[in-house]
Amino acid sequence: MTVLILTSEEDVTADMVVVHLNASGVPVVRLDPADLPGGVALSGEYVHGAFRGHLSAAGRLVSIGGLRSIWVRRPGAAAARAAAPSDWLTEEASQALYGMLRGSAARWMNHPDAARRARHKPWQLHLAQRCGLPVPATLITTFPQAARAFAERYPDLVVKPVSGTHPQDPPLAVPTSRVDPDTDFSAVAHGPTLLQRRVAKRADIRLTAVGDRMLAARKATDDADPREIDVRFAPSTAPWQPVEVPTCVAAGVQAYLRDAELAYGAFDFAEEADGTWWFLECNQSGQFGFVEVDTGQPIALSVAEWLAAPGPERPSRVNGRGSVTR
Amino acid sequence: MTVLILTSEEDVTADMVVVHLNASGVPVVRLDPADLPGGVALSGEYVHGAFRGHLSAAGRLVSIGGLRSIWVRRPGAAAARAAAPSDWLTEEASQALYGMLRGSAARWMNHPDAARRARHKPWQLHLAQRCGLPVPATLITTFPQAARAFAERYPDLVVKPVSGTHPQDPPLAVPTSRVDPDTDFSAVAHGPTLLQRRVAKRADIRLTAVGDRMLAARKATDDADPREIDVRFAPSTAPWQPVEVPTCVAAGVQAYLRDAELAYGAFDFAEEADGTWWFLECNQSGQFGFVEVDTGQPIALSVAEWLAAPGPERPSRVNGRGSVTR
Repeated sequence: MTVLILTSEEDVTADMVVVHLNASGVPVVRLDPADLPGGVALSGEYVHGAFRGHLSAAGRLVSIGGLRSIWVRRPGAAAARAAAPSDWLTEEASQALYGMLRGSAARWMNHPDAARRARHKPWQLHLAQRCGLPVPATLITTFPQAARAFAERYPDLVVKPVSGTHPQDPPLAVPTSRVDPDTDFSAVAHGPTLLQRRVAKRADIRLTAVGDRMLAARKATDDADPREIDVRFAPSTAPWQPVEVPTCVAAGVQAYLRDAELAYGAFDFAEEADGTWWFLECNQSGQFGFVEVDTGQPIALSVAEWLAAPGPERPSRVNGRGSVTR
Repeated sequence: MTVLILTSEEDVTADMVVVHLNASGVPVVRLDPADLPGGVALSGEYVHGAFRGHLSAAGRLVSIGGLRSIWVRRPGAAAARAAAPSDWLTEEASQALYGMLRGSAARWMNHPDAARRARHKPWQLHLAQRCGLPVPATLITTFPQAARAFAERYPDLVVKPVSGTHPQDPPLAVPTSRVDPDTDFSAVAHGPTLLQRRVAKRADIRLTAVGDRMLAARKATDDADPREIDVRFAPSTAPWQPVEVPTCVAAGVQAYLRDAELAYGAFDFAEEADGTWWFLECNQSGQFGFVEVDTGQPIALSVAEWLAAPGPERPSRVNGRGSVTR
């Protein structure tokens, strides 16, 4: 049974995991959908009520029925490197590849449907609430009056994008910024705006969840310049250090992963002075290399072990989400 | 409890359903995400562990918690008609709208995740096989040698797109075409190709499934010009007529809908001389107006009744797919 890794050629994070998989002797096929058709080829046959499919990459042939797990790391768009690329060819190649893989019994990290759903920030906030994780008071609105009323109740505010990364090429991360409560909120009518009570944090928490395993890291912040609130843009003053996961957070995170049907998630929390971990977001494809480098936590190894676990989770499922078929 | 219909302004099919909903007195809000922000506004607040959200359209305000069902008919892209449209605004507005709706307890026709998955033809074929529906022998491949071998086994072949509609504007339906078994298949290496045994059909079958209800229609074909095999492009000679659904097909279709998590599906079958209904595809957003006009079958009424059914299916689910949360 083979591990399939879908990612671009240059991916140091994938390299870290492949080292562990190779050490354990588990067969690995790594390919970029951008190379289909071309360096990657596929064939699937539906005859006499059964499916038989194969993928070929770098001279290796693997049976789709022989996949134990599929890691969707950072795949390129299908057919992006084809001799004559086009939107149509990308669509055809994508549907052929993922359509076949979706019929396999392999375990996914993460399943494309779960991954897509998990990117919706409003849905994340709702799910975190339901799972008992503390969520800072948040408003997403196109009503200026609602924004004004919220700013009166929570005058110490930040604004951040609803959807995360700005879809330019290369993608532009939009920093979280503070906003004055007496701001003119009339522009809110021109685009949904996410306002959130600012957490006066004493540390940032990155919790990386891999299956049932949770590895949390903490980076102290001095909150000296309260304008620098986005850890991605602040100059690094302290290293990430391993930290225990409070029991109630662990239960919430496990519930979140189960309901979100995610095998991997990178959770960001803000730790307040009273010790509360406030849920900010869960990135289903979050990087983990920088945490592993600082903390020495075995995240790549955990990913490798999850991918290498024997056999499909539910041998008879067809839709990758546990629905048992005849 | 309100029915929410997401569709464009001009949508005769939606009009047909709204007539029935209005007659039954069920509140309906119809909007096009293209009008968000602008004619459509939204606001959602996550405070003290609870979510409260609202949508506003055409001067009506509806609570997201008060939605009984959501019909995703033919919605425009979010923010497409904004004063200053952009990819970024579309992404923000789409995530805000669907992110909030995904957290609602409403029943979906169809849920966006199920809809997206259901478009994958290879997955459709695999699921149909598993559900016991007869599937004509099919090959999807980029291996010329595999195509040649398949053509030797099944010399009476058709070729069709893997992904359905060509993504130009307006979309171009690519007809299914016959292909000679001695074709030069080397071009298969340049794009995944779907080859299928041609069914010598005596009729086309369109089975429209709405929840548990199945309404099938049959249109006789004379197979006189075997080059005209795509009903969408053949001149109409016979009307659609209602037909009974064979018991084994009914069981397969119900299993398909259940596993695909679809509330609506338009199934296309080819009826062979021996009476077998061969599964060709299931279009989760297939039109039904033309069948209703020909047959008088109450499809719009069935859709309206499904949408109007009281309350959410599973009040406590959060992800729209039956996962129960605390």
